[in-house]
Amino acid sequence: MAEVAYAKGLEGIIAGESAISRIDGQAGRLTYRGFSIEELAEYSDFEEATYLLLYEKLPNSSEMEAFRRTMRASRGISAPIIEMVRSFPIGAHPMELLQSVMAYLSGYVEHRIQHSASCNCRQTLHQVAQIATVVAAYKRLRDGEAFVSPRMDLSHGANFLYMLRGVEPEPYEGEIMDKCLVLHAEHGFNASTFTARVVASTLSTCYSSISAAMGALYGSLHGGANERVMAMVEEIGTKANVGKWVNDALDNHKKIMGMGHREYRVKDPRANTIESMLRTLSEKKGDSRYYDILKEVERVFRARMETSGKPIYPNVDFFSGAVYSLLGIPKQLFTPVFAIARVSGWLAHVLEQRVGNRIFRPESLYTGPEVREYVPIEERE
Amino acid sequence: MAEVAYAKGLEGIIAGESAISRIDGQAGRLTYRGFSIEELAEYSDFEEATYLLLYEKLPNSSEMEAFRRTMRASRGISAPIIEMVRSFPIGAHPMELLQSVMAYLSGYVEHRIQHSASCNCRQTLHQVAQIATVVAAYKRLRDGEAFVSPRMDLSHGANFLYMLRGVEPEPYEGEIMDKCLVLHAEHGFNASTFTARVVASTLSTCYSSISAAMGALYGSLHGGANERVMAMVEEIGTKANVGKWVNDALDNHKKIMGMGHREYRVKDPRANTIESMLRTLSEKKGDSRYYDILKEVERVFRARMETSGKPIYPNVDFFSGAVYSLLGIPKQLFTPVFAIARVSGWLAHVLEQRVGNRIFRPESLYTGPEVREYVPIEERE
Repeated sequence: MAEVAYAKGLEGIIAGESAISRIDGQAGRLTYRGFSIEELAEYSDFEEATYLLLYEKLPNSSEMEAFRRTMRASRGISAPIIEMVRSFPIGAHPMELLQSVMAYLSGYVEHRIQHSASCNCRQTLHQVAQIATVVAAYKRLRDGEAFVSPRMDLSHGANFLYMLRGVEPEPYEGEIMDKCLVLHAEHGFNASTFTARVVASTLSTCYSSISAAMGALYGSLHGGANERVMAMVEEIGTKANVGKWVNDALDNHKKIMGMGHREYRVKDPRANTIESMLRTLSEKKGDSRYYDILKEVERVFRARMETSGKPIYPNVDFFSGAVYSLLGIPKQLFTPVFAIARVSGWLAHVLEQRVGNRIFRPESLYTGPEVREYVPIEERE
Repeated sequence: MAEVAYAKGLEGIIAGESAISRIDGQAGRLTYRGFSIEELAEYSDFEEATYLLLYEKLPNSSEMEAFRRTMRASRGISAPIIEMVRSFPIGAHPMELLQSVMAYLSGYVEHRIQHSASCNCRQTLHQVAQIATVVAAYKRLRDGEAFVSPRMDLSHGANFLYMLRGVEPEPYEGEIMDKCLVLHAEHGFNASTFTARVVASTLSTCYSSISAAMGALYGSLHGGANERVMAMVEEIGTKANVGKWVNDALDNHKKIMGMGHREYRVKDPRANTIESMLRTLSEKKGDSRYYDILKEVERVFRARMETSGKPIYPNVDFFSGAVYSLLGIPKQLFTPVFAIARVSGWLAHVLEQRVGNRIFRPESLYTGPEVREYVPIEERE
C-alpha cells in the first residue's frame, strides 16, 4: 500500500476563502465580519447579528426594522410541517426531525436550484426563522401539549422561550436566550458549516445545504458537548462532590467535557461571556447550584492541569448547558438550540460559497485490492 | 488581502483513504472492490453489487440468499412516510423529498448515533431498499394514482419499474434497469459521497449522512446531466436535425451535455455498457429514435472536436437518459434514480469513514475586514 502523506480530516488544509468570521486561536479572539463576539453579545441581538452575517455590515434603523419584520413574519410553520412533527417517532432525536423538515421546506419555496448567489433566501429567511418554531413544536407535541404559535412582538430568543413554555418569559430570560444565539451563530469551517458549503458547491438549494449541515451537527463529535457537561453536573450533584469526582475521572484518564477547544490555544472568547450570563441567571433565579459546581470543576481541573504544565480553559459548552437548564430547556434540545443559532452562519456560508464557486471533488488514496476477475457464484467459497 | 495558494474545490487534494472503488482516468477503468464495472454490469446485479460494496467481497450462495431476503424485506414504507410523500408540494422536486424522507427514516431505526462502524445499517438495509419505493410512491401519488406496494420476488430494478407502473415489466426491462443501478452505484469522492463522509466523520447516523449526500446530488453541477441530455434530444427531434443543431451550438460556444468527464482522460468505461443497453432496448421496443439522434450527435461532435485536436467521448449520462425514457421513467426522476443506485456507495463510504475516523475540519483563508468597533444604530449610515 502506498505511503502517501495527507492530512486526515483535512486538518490544516485550506478549503476555501471566507470573509464571514475570523477565529484567532492564539489571541483567543472571534469576530463576525470584523466585530468582536464580546461586543456583539453585549450590544447586539440575534436578528441584528443575522443581518450582519448575511449583509456584511450592521444595518441602519430602517434596514433593521424591515429585516426584523421579515424575519418575524417568517416564523410560522404550515400544517404539513406540524403534522411531520406530530408523527415523528417517540424516542427519535429532534436533530433528525430538523434535518428532515429543512429539506422538506425546500419544496415549499419558489426558489429552486440556483446557479448564483441571487436566490431569495437572504430576503425571505424562512429557514432561519422557522427552525426555532419547529424545535418548540417538537418539545410541546412530544410532551402532549398544544402547539404554540409564534409571537411577532418578541425577540428571536424570547419568542423561542415563549413557544416552548406557552407563557411569556421574563425580559432578562429572553435577553439571555437571545444573546446565547448570538454567541453560537458562526464559527468558521467546522464540520457542519463545511458540509453546507460542499452541498452548496453543487448549486443545490440553501435549504438542502442547511439540512445537510444539521446532519453533521447531530454527530456526537460536533454538537452535544454541552449536553454531556450537564450530564456530568447532574452526576456530580453537589459542589462538595466535585473534588473527588474530577480527580477520580482524571486518574482514570476520562475526558472532562467542555474543557479546551481545537481552535483556541488560549481561552474560548465566548466562555467569559456565557459564564457571566450564567452568573446573572443564577442570581436572578436564586439557584447557583450549577454555577457553583461548574466553577469548582474548573478550579480542580485547572489546578491539576497546571501542575502538569498544560493550561486548559473552559470553552463555551462548559457553561451553556447550565444556562439552558436554568431557562427550562431540556438537555435533548441543546443541539437543536445550537442549530437555531448556527443556521444564520450556515446561510451566510452557502451564499458566500456560490460566489466564484467550484464544486468540491477531492481525491482519495486507493487502498483496495488490485483488479481481479469476477467468479461465478457456484465457484465462490 | 493575502495571496495564499490553495486548491479551489479541493481539486487534487487527498481527503482520505478508500478501498471501495478505483477510477483510473488515464486507462478509462472503473473497479468496485477490484472488479471491473464491465464485468459487474454483465454478470452481477444490483443486490450483489451492493453486497460487494458493503462486505468487500462477492457473496457465496447462502450469503447472497440471506442478503437478498433482508434487502427485499426492507422495501416497504410506513404510513407516515407515505403521508409525507402525499403532502409534498406539487411542483417541488423529488430530490428534496428524498433528502427529507431519509433523515426522517433515521428516527425510525433503533440505531442511534454510533461511535464505530458497528451500527446495524449494513444488516438492515432500510435506507438502501426504501429509496426506490419512495421514488415510485412520489411518481404515482403525484400523478393521482394509487401507491403500489413493493413485490419481493423481483430484482431491485424490476421491482422499481413494477412500483412505477403497477404492472410487471418485461424481463429484459427489469434486467436493464437493474444493470443501470449497478453502473451508478459507486464513483469515488464525488461531491455527494464526500458530503456523506464529512457528515459521517462527526459520528452522525448513516441516514443523516445519506440524506446530506442527497442534498449534494440534487445540485445542478452534480446530478441532472442526463436530464439535460434528454432535453437536448427532444429539442433536436430527428436525426436529420442533428448536424445543424450541434454545429450551431458549438459555434455559439454552448456546452453539449454528456460529453467528457472530469475524472476520465479517455472514454468513461460505463459509456460503452450503457450504449449497448440502449441499443438492445431500442431494438426490443422497435424505437431507435433516441439512439439514432444520440449516435449522430456523438459523430458530429467528435468530428468537430478531433479537427481541433481535442478527443472528447460520451460519458455515462449521454446514454442513460434515453434508456430511462424508453423504460417509461419521466425526466424528473432521473436524479432520484441516480440516488437509488448511489445509496449503496454512500453507505459503504459512511461505514468506511468510521474506521480510524477523524472529523473533517479544514481551514479557511480569511478575506474579511479587520477588527472594527461596534457602532450604535443611531450613528450608522
